[in-house]
Amino acid sequence: MGKLVRFSISIEEGLLSSFDELVQERGYQNRSEAIRDAIRRQLVYREWEAGEEVAGVITILYDHHRPGVAETLTGLQHHALAHVIVSMHIHLDQSNCLECIAVRGEARTIEALADRLMSLKGVKHGELTATSTGKKLT
Amino acid sequence: MGKLVRFSISIEEGLLSSFDELVQERGYQNRSEAIRDAIRRQLVYREWEAGEEVAGVITILYDHHRPGVAETLTGLQHHALAHVIVSMHIHLDQSNCLECIAVRGEARTIEALADRLMSLKGVKHGELTATSTGKKLT
Amino acid sequence: MGKLVRFSISIEEGLLSSFDELVQERGYQNRSEAIRDAIRRQLVYREWEAGEEVAGVITILYDHHRPGVAETLTGLQHHALAHVIVSMHIHLDQSNCLECIAVRGEARTIEALADRLMSLKGVKHGELTATSTGKKLT
Amino acid sequence: MGKLVRFSISIEEGLLSSFDELVQERGYQNRSEAIRDAIRRQLVYREWEAGEEVAGVITILYDHHRPGVAETLTGLQHHALAHVIVSMHIHLDQSNCLECIAVRGEARTIEALADRLMSLKGVKHGELTATSTGKKLT
Repeated sequence: MGKLVRFSISIEEGLLSSFDELVQERGYQNRSEAIRDAIRRQLVYREWEAGEEVAGVITILYDHHRPGVAETLTGLQHHALAHVIVSMHIHLDQSNCLECIAVRGEARTIEALADRLMSLKGVKHGELTATSTGKKLT
Repeated sequence: MGKLVRFSISIEEGLLSSFDELVQERGYQNRSEAIRDAIRRQLVYREWEAGEEVAGVITILYDHHRPGVAETLTGLQHHALAHVIVSMHIHLDQSNCLECIAVRGEARTIEALADRLMSLKGVKHGELTATSTGKKLT
Repeated sequence: MGKLVRFSISIEEGLLSSFDELVQERGYQNRSEAIRDAIRRQLVYREWEAGEEVAGVITILYDHHRPGVAETLTGLQHHALAHVIVSMHIHLDQSNCLECIAVRGEARTIEALADRLMSLKGVKHGELTATSTGKKLT
Repeated sequence: MGKLVRFSISIEEGLLSSFDELVQERGYQNRSEAIRDAIRRQLVYREWEAGEEVAGVITILYDHHRPGVAETLTGLQHHALAHVIVSMHIHLDQSNCLECIAVRGEARTIEALADRLMSLKGVKHGELTATSTGKKLT
């Protein structure tokens, strides 16, 4: 956590009061926290756009009764070992599994890995969640 | 434009310098302008979520050689006259037309109208752009 | 409009019946139309990703009482004449204006132009709607 | 996995060949798999829109040196025990932690829980990944 600095911004009275409602609704402690969050969100977006080193989570929903899909998922993750940090497997019901795969690496490489996993036969739904290594967000 | 007020926020030094880069990249005049923009963007999102009166633009790409599509598009717009403000038709080439339809009304009604127009046979691509009447954004 | 071909796809019975509900809800005439729409949507996304020649609409909400904003908006559009096809100005109320600017050009150039217009002081909200010239969507 | 049925769709020749390129790029085994994926993606979206029972992943990036944040995160998860299935904690570096929280429940409840966790002081970035319990996706 870096050194804290202060700066002031000017804003229309009506816009500020609408913002204050939003801050309260979302459960933020104060305006500063809400604004820092909005800033960090834009910086995460920029890291992905610029193709920097990022972190992410690949979420995969699949039916483990489909022959081969679990093995292929595991095989692909081992193949991409340099980028896969760890994965967690959740048994949703008798058939449906949710797998969360935490990854890190260059944005384009992570996107390609996610595309590969999500397009596997037997995978019902997949999403890549873009986040950051956090290094530049302090 | 309402009365201007000032307030100050505290932020980590490193985060502020990354934000300053972003402000410059996007061509903002200063930090206040960039933060006001982020705030208004969240308020527009909330107006749509809450189903309030909103403004929007329905963008439709279609081939005017397809029989019936232009007539149906016009017919549907007249039918939804209470919500359609005006539309603009652009000839992209010999076949392709771009139509921008400015609309206003309750969010759910506007979404239903957009779905209706975008699913028409002959329409190649459609998007609903969510914006605001601006009343609460001052 | 190109020559029509047919191909068949295999799908789980339950998935097909959920899809049929969706097709009806969205007002599609039949499954083919809904699937073609989904395909075209992905192709439009790919044109933007690949930085190809695209079409788009920049939607700008602003208060025309703010000194200078209308002139700057017009000035910037003339400056980007090669990319701006036409624009439409809507008077939402005494203060609020909605401007829809139809643009065409390389995806990265269009994005930069949109960023420039949306970050102008006095602009309350802006969105870039990504669509296509339609050439590859037949 | 349900019983397989077949149906055929008609499509313009040019559109089909662009789609075939896309299928290959994304690594799909065949067109059917790519189309089923597009259909399931829309059905997941509809489950969230309709507020049905869904599954999701809340991804939280935070600095564990910030006093209280780890405890608060754990406390809130225990408080929402009915919705939190399991969570996984990844040490990205000396300070940065990534936490993936698998959740299930009604869409609006899950969204509220995610908002609560993401707005905590000390949380740098958070995302809610929307997926499905998979029950209707077979």
